[in-house]
Amino acid sequence: RIDGDRLWESLMEMARIGPGVAGGNNRQTLTDADKQGRELFARWCEEAGLTMGVDKMGTMFMTRPGTDPEALPVYIGSHLDTQPTGGKFDGVLGVLSGLEVVRTLNDLDIRTRHPIVVTNWTNEEGARFAPAMLASGVFAGAIPLEHAYGRTDLEGKSFGDELERIGWKGAEEVGARKMHAYFEYHIEQGPILEAENVEIGVVTHCQGLWWLEFTLTGKEAHTGSTPMNMRVNAGLAMARIMEMVQEVAMAAQPGAVGGVGQVQFAPNSRNVLPGTVVFTVDIRSPDQAKLDGMRAAIEARAAQICAALGVGCAIEPVGHFDPVTFDPTLVERVRAAAEKLGHSHMNLISGAGHDACWAAKVAPATMIMCPCVDGLSHNEAEDISKEWASAGADVLFHAVVETAGI
Amino acid sequence: RIDGDRLWESLMEMARIGPGVAGGNNRQTLTDADKQGRELFARWCEEAGLTMGVDKMGTMFMTRPGTDPEALPVYIGSHLDTQPTGGKFDGVLGVLSGLEVVRTLNDLDIRTRHPIVVTNWTNEEGARFAPAMLASGVFAGAIPLEHAYGRTDLEGKSFGDELERIGWKGAEEVGARKMHAYFEYHIEQGPILEAENVEIGVVTHCQGLWWLEFTLTGKEAHTGSTPMNMRVNAGLAMARIMEMVQEVAMAAQPGAVGGVGQVQFAPNSRNVLPGTVVFTVDIRSPDQAKLDGMRAAIEARAAQICAALGVGCAIEPVGHFDPVTFDPTLVERVRAAAEKLGHSHMNLISGAGHDACWAAKVAPATMIMCPCVDGLSHNEAEDISKEWASAGADVLFHAVVETAGI
Ligand SMILES: NC(=O)NCCC(=O)O
Ligand SMILES: NC(=O)NCCC(=O)O
Repeated sequence: RIDGDRLWESLMEMARIGPGVAGGNNRQTLTDADKQGRELFARWCEEAGLTMGVDKMGTMFMTRPGTDPEALPVYIGSHLDTQPTGGKFDGVLGVLSGLEVVRTLNDLDIRTRHPIVVTNWTNEEGARFAPAMLASGVFAGAIPLEHAYGRTDLEGKSFGDELERIGWKGAEEVGARKMHAYFEYHIEQGPILEAENVEIGVVTHCQGLWWLEFTLTGKEAHTGSTPMNMRVNAGLAMARIMEMVQEVAMAAQPGAVGGVGQVQFAPNSRNVLPGTVVFTVDIRSPDQAKLDGMRAAIEARAAQICAALGVGCAIEPVGHFDPVTFDPTLVERVRAAAEKLGHSHMNLISGAGHDACWAAKVAPATMIMCPCVDGLSHNEAEDISKEWASAGADVLFHAVVETAGI
Repeated sequence: RIDGDRLWESLMEMARIGPGVAGGNNRQTLTDADKQGRELFARWCEEAGLTMGVDKMGTMFMTRPGTDPEALPVYIGSHLDTQPTGGKFDGVLGVLSGLEVVRTLNDLDIRTRHPIVVTNWTNEEGARFAPAMLASGVFAGAIPLEHAYGRTDLEGKSFGDELERIGWKGAEEVGARKMHAYFEYHIEQGPILEAENVEIGVVTHCQGLWWLEFTLTGKEAHTGSTPMNMRVNAGLAMARIMEMVQEVAMAAQPGAVGGVGQVQFAPNSRNVLPGTVVFTVDIRSPDQAKLDGMRAAIEARAAQICAALGVGCAIEPVGHFDPVTFDPTLVERVRAAAEKLGHSHMNLISGAGHDACWAAKVAPATMIMCPCVDGLSHNEAEDISKEWASAGADVLFHAVVETAGI
């Protein structure tokens, strides 16, 4: 069994870096806080005897050698970056549980046949730079490296420049590594496990996603002296598109979601009708046909809404992954581990995207989930219990050791 | 007659300070560019023999003495601050035409009985700090000085600190001055004069305004893993309120407008439903009962919209002035001047707010307007012709000289 107290202490120590404003974290990717978080993690890995590789996307690969020089590594990965007002566990739990697996193997003096590589993927959240899971997307060959480098945040800073700035652009070609298997342990970020009073989510699938970035062009004009019938109101078009996205998502129930998290008005002045409105629609479903149908409906209806108002409408997909089916053998291994350890478990479809979704393109992959309080995530109030954290880390340990061989 | 070329050259020289990104200006109040604009204007005034007074709101009063030591001054005012993406004429035309009136009097060696004071009011636009017409509002006793000092911009900087920073906090008590009359010359910022092919707007009224700042509180949560029925979606509530504001304004036609220019989502991340949404509704009408009825309807319906979604709704009025009727004697004097000079003219109701609206509370006041291309303002493409500018400045000159006496 892993050491639940040690895991918890590491989680709390990492949470001191990039504190939020309400008990959570703001350790957004490629910020100074991210750099500090990486340094702490690297020091812990060094103390645990791991050797570091860093690729050109800044992803950290921390290797514990295996006994068989021919055997490909088993990867345990997730991310240390957070949302601007993120929780202490989203991503961090998976990375530090990977470290805890290694620490436990060291304690028990167990050597595995396959090497084990604990991985911290860069920019999983996609908060600063869209899309989410950017580094694992490049790793899987789905996103070109140059495209990733060129992505910009709201201040216009580019991913490539910021990666250089914090000094974590490595030399390794992205995606050069081959994986025997990939495991990711994560909080559910949804309400199901807690509601069902179950300790372990055996993740069989992940829903697919589209991020559609809308750029609406209106006529920048005075709110007071511009008559209603002379307005080309991009803000009103946005409002109608938001309501329509809600309708499309509701019509696709069950098994779909849709919403808007980011909005920018320009010039964003109280007495100026916006000349430009940029916002991102986030739609998801585990059903590929439903997901693509929602996208098509949203694009068609948005065009009508904008045409009726005379507003220009450009739509750029800035994030996408197809629904994922995880590797059945690994899924069964997770279930068997939960069973053996006496933890209650159930099948889950991941509502959020994860680096495991891209890893699944290039290796057998799966995920393990633990409950989180009120299903709340992407919120500083995100919370889990030490017991939940430990149970999933134990399942991870057993599934990984089973896969890596002794 | 005034010198239309000289006026135009001064307009173009001022426009070099705080250039915009598309041919207009970004000379927002209390920025370094505003400071530079004030310095240029002060230098021109000094060259024209005017003496400067500055009050505690940073408003600049440039005095040309009269022949009668007992006579109260005639004021000519407007503003040099701009929107973030503003035009070259909004406000600036009025201030520099005041200077041109003085330059012309100097050229003609005319001394008036009443002093003439050319005035540059601080923060007319309200873009950086709500409300608009802040300094004239304090001057008229409608807004407490301490309230004005405490207003903050989107970065949290306060009006008081920024006024100190640029070095333009004067010693004069705000509102201590008494006015014989107040004139303001401004571009129309609306489409009527151009459509009617009329040179001079004789402004009889100004419509009233409410700025209602909404703070909606939702539940910050993951866009992917939060089921539709568990969302407390403040962004959706905002969309519905925007559509409702449009409906309320359309139902109040003719003679009313309503819209939204400023929106802030927090944390404003693509995969986070916003925890907080702040936006400002701008509603106006020349009819007091209609204006207040719109406000009441919007507040009542917003409460219903938010309640249905479980979203918290707080509404703070951050800007307000009642509809204004300008002084009939001064209005007739403007009309007579236009008539005498052979300029076509018509009555107008100002759609935008102006410092004249507050001045009208403490003195006889009125306004003169000239057309602007396509009725466009609060847009860098805002444009007027030199001929339009000169015609209105001539009317201003004659109405002012008539009022100040020779
Ligand atoms: N796990 C997680 O929150 N990932 C961020 C990407 C997404 O929006 O699903
Ligand atoms: N004239 C002008 O644009 N003033 C700004 C205040 C308003 O919004 O009406």
